[in-house]
Amino acid sequence: MSSLTLTALRAIPEVRAGDDLALLIAGALTATGVPAAHGDVLVVAQKIVSKSEGRVVALDGVVPSARAADYARITGKDPRYVELVLRESVRIVRAAPGVLIAEHRLGCVMANAGIDRSNVPGEDCVLLLPEDPDASARALRDGLHAACGAGIGVLVIDSFGRPWRHGVVGTALGVAGLPALVDLRGRPDRQGRALQLTQVALADGLAAAASLLMGEGAEGAPVVHARGVPYPRRESSVRELLRPAAEDLFR
Amino acid sequence: MSSLTLTALRAIPEVRAGDDLALLIAGALTATGVPAAHGDVLVVAQKIVSKSEGRVVALDGVVPSARAADYARITGKDPRYVELVLRESVRIVRAAPGVLIAEHRLGCVMANAGIDRSNVPGEDCVLLLPEDPDASARALRDGLHAACGAGIGVLVIDSFGRPWRHGVVGTALGVAGLPALVDLRGRPDRQGRALQLTQVALADGLAAAASLLMGEGAEGAPVVHARGVPYPRRESSVRELLRPAAEDLFR
Repeated sequence: MSSLTLTALRAIPEVRAGDDLALLIAGALTATGVPAAHGDVLVVAQKIVSKSEGRVVALDGVVPSARAADYARITGKDPRYVELVLRESVRIVRAAPGVLIAEHRLGCVMANAGIDRSNVPGEDCVLLLPEDPDASARALRDGLHAACGAGIGVLVIDSFGRPWRHGVVGTALGVAGLPALVDLRGRPDRQGRALQLTQVALADGLAAAASLLMGEGAEGAPVVHARGVPYPRRESSVRELLRPAAEDLFR
Repeated sequence: MSSLTLTALRAIPEVRAGDDLALLIAGALTATGVPAAHGDVLVVAQKIVSKSEGRVVALDGVVPSARAADYARITGKDPRYVELVLRESVRIVRAAPGVLIAEHRLGCVMANAGIDRSNVPGEDCVLLLPEDPDASARALRDGLHAACGAGIGVLVIDSFGRPWRHGVVGTALGVAGLPALVDLRGRPDRQGRALQLTQVALADGLAAAASLLMGEGAEGAPVVHARGVPYPRRESSVRELLRPAAEDLFR
């Protein structure tokens, strides 16, 4: 029998800059009664990673450029906020009233370059993505290995909107200790022919599942423990999931 | 403790046109030792739904139109296959060498309008999506209720490619007995402000998770049982997830 079990860890206090997230998560695993075992995966909301890394920015100190003022007019968004989106991005993919979709310098295409205004303490403060979410995931993985003695995978995830469909889904921003993409090319189908759809976005699938347990808002659980992920482990990077602009028909 | 457990049901025989899928799934639940309980969700691969509904088409009998011949030249695909894609679609969203992305008449934007050539028995046969996947999901839900005596939700899913990112993820095609989209608008965040990202694509998140356990190809499990889905149930439709073309920046 092949089972995947996801458990929300709620016993995580409000995270502050400089907090040791691996220790907080190790404590939450103990409090929840789910000791980490080899092969488990911990899925961590970007927000607490960014908070622990001090990625809060006060809009007060941000001076918008002329380009930011232009996009602020198109989108109806705060020019200081738009300025931060532009600084975090390599290109604007779409701009329309209420909508600003950017290609983040990390390669993810996201609304507002992933800069969040909700659940951020402080008047008029926003939260940027981690500087390098793969590195954040690796550091957490190493810290959890030290704290729990188990070789586990770590995903740093966020909620992404999508073209064509309503609603957000959890999506991977950083990956350590499990394959972001699983390549099934060359495997036969039941009739012995080569498969057509051959790459599975494992990290995004797990992110989407875990995100359902995190919820949003006040009752949220920012970490989800996953056991039974049915693919062999290897080192990886979220870059495996990023389609280069030159190969993309939607940029 | 809030947990979501997904279990792959492997004890499903090769499905043929006219098979009673609800009975096959009820048998697989028993064989796997996972009796269905009220509130569970069964996630079912589109392929076995389409097969049970007799949606196999032989390419031999398909005569390509001039428009199909044009797109076949652009994409390098079989003109008869392209003809079926056009018949199933209301618009072509992108065409390029090796790529034909269509808006299916059901409203989903998919590569090749979801028409599959792998795992289809018969020489040069292909498999169309179910005529009405919401109706397929409702029929399965009713059949499972009759067979198992439990009120369960049903998703019919398929693997979708995506703009911007590599790899396929499971995505909902049909929904019965659980909300496709969960609306969190108006809920406060931890600071008491209204949330910005407020609609969660529950059916797509569950589809993405279940799809990881289905795998692809010869060892696939076409049905996944989910217990612990953390949202209240209601009637629904996949249409909740479909962004109308007029509101979409990528069509």
